[in-house]
Amino acid sequence: LNSKVSNQLQLKPDERLDDLIRNDLKIIQNPKYFCFSIDAVLLAHFSTIKNGDKVMDIGTGSGVIPLLLSLRPGIKSILGVEIQEQLADMAKRSVLINNLEQQISILNEDVKGLNLAEKFDLILSNPPYRGLHEGKVSPVAEIAMAKHEVAANLDDIVKKASQHLKSSGRLAMVHRPYRLADIIQTFRKYNIEPKRVRMVHPYLEKDANLVLIEGVKGAQAYLKVEPPLVVYNTDGKYTKEVLEFYYGK
Amino acid sequence: LNSKVSNQLQLKPDERLDDLIRNDLKIIQNPKYFCFSIDAVLLAHFSTIKNGDKVMDIGTGSGVIPLLLSLRPGIKSILGVEIQEQLADMAKRSVLINNLEQQISILNEDVKGLNLAEKFDLILSNPPYRGLHEGKVSPVAEIAMAKHEVAANLDDIVKKASQHLKSSGRLAMVHRPYRLADIIQTFRKYNIEPKRVRMVHPYLEKDANLVLIEGVKGAQAYLKVEPPLVVYNTDGKYTKEVLEFYYGK
Repeated sequence: LNSKVSNQLQLKPDERLDDLIRNDLKIIQNPKYFCFSIDAVLLAHFSTIKNGDKVMDIGTGSGVIPLLLSLRPGIKSILGVEIQEQLADMAKRSVLINNLEQQISILNEDVKGLNLAEKFDLILSNPPYRGLHEGKVSPVAEIAMAKHEVAANLDDIVKKASQHLKSSGRLAMVHRPYRLADIIQTFRKYNIEPKRVRMVHPYLEKDANLVLIEGVKGAQAYLKVEPPLVVYNTDGKYTKEVLEFYYGK
Repeated sequence: LNSKVSNQLQLKPDERLDDLIRNDLKIIQNPKYFCFSIDAVLLAHFSTIKNGDKVMDIGTGSGVIPLLLSLRPGIKSILGVEIQEQLADMAKRSVLINNLEQQISILNEDVKGLNLAEKFDLILSNPPYRGLHEGKVSPVAEIAMAKHEVAANLDDIVKKASQHLKSSGRLAMVHRPYRLADIIQTFRKYNIEPKRVRMVHPYLEKDANLVLIEGVKGAQAYLKVEPPLVVYNTDGKYTKEVLEFYYGK
């Protein structure tokens, strides 16, 4: 770490400073809660970016998606919204460590109460995947809220996203394929038409375990199903595409 | 052709007798209308079959799906419904040529008026893909009805399928991915929950151009996205999986 970074860096107990690998990005994480996963990396690379975009990330956690989006050219601003104070605080310090405070802001607020005057070109979310009755809810609030729909559910997130999108603005989400029918129906409920889908398969011959989906507010129906995104080769190593997400071309 | 087949066979003008390749199945087709495509082959192999199933194929055309299904073990009966008299007649003669009249029946009727006492375990459909405003509608009625939603649309077919399915019965469909959001929404409208999806990509790195989907009447939400079905290898030849659909293992 150079002196500038170490001066700004105040790690709290259990926190650690991890590499985001590309462009020397750093991120503060606390493994007692959770660490970012490939899901966020895939979403940051999947979403369509247009020049001058104003972007919001709903449920930003430790800020991994805003940090990764800063690598994609053309984005004017990124607002990360996070309900949990400790996570929002980590995200704010990660923004400072990376000198990205001109581009990224972190807002510690419950998405369900969100009512901003600003409208966005692109909203992303890597939401909790599980409904309240799907498996045991963690006793650790940070983990529970990240994994189960404790603080906000799919309907809450899509509703608030639609409210904060400009006309023809995009909502990009990573989620579990088993909920795809709900996702499509909820997008449409709030006037967001699914336009692009990409299935993520751990191996080419396995069922998808993630789905990437992008909808456009007020658009006509016409869905593009892009080539499957395969994470591992048969030898268990990352495929070329995934390696490029982590290390660049 | 052996003498039994040739005795039963009465080809009409422009018709020809084609091989369905596996198990010496034959099918009468008329290339002035259309010939069966890989879509039907993929659907016949995709659908879940359980022992003793009573099956209906909506919009059976020249009967290719019932004929192919006869190769899959366990099916008790297959009813093919076709609105067009000439196509239904071809399908009936193909059933006779293959000596499958004990298993397959063909009904020349408009699906929109269908109101059978019998309920089915599995209903399939390879429906017309295009809405009335999508591209030029053929002046040949047989082609128009096969390609555009002239005689029945997605809503009509799913509605009638649901009406004729037993509780927990399955609806399997092949369609274009660009309509997937409509398909999922229409399934749910008629209480058919999407349970299995398989995307069909002409090449691994191309967008999907077909989607296979199976729903279950009255089921809980939980969608399985199966491995991508890739049709061609990079050398332009059928993949091993598709070759097995045509020629067996």
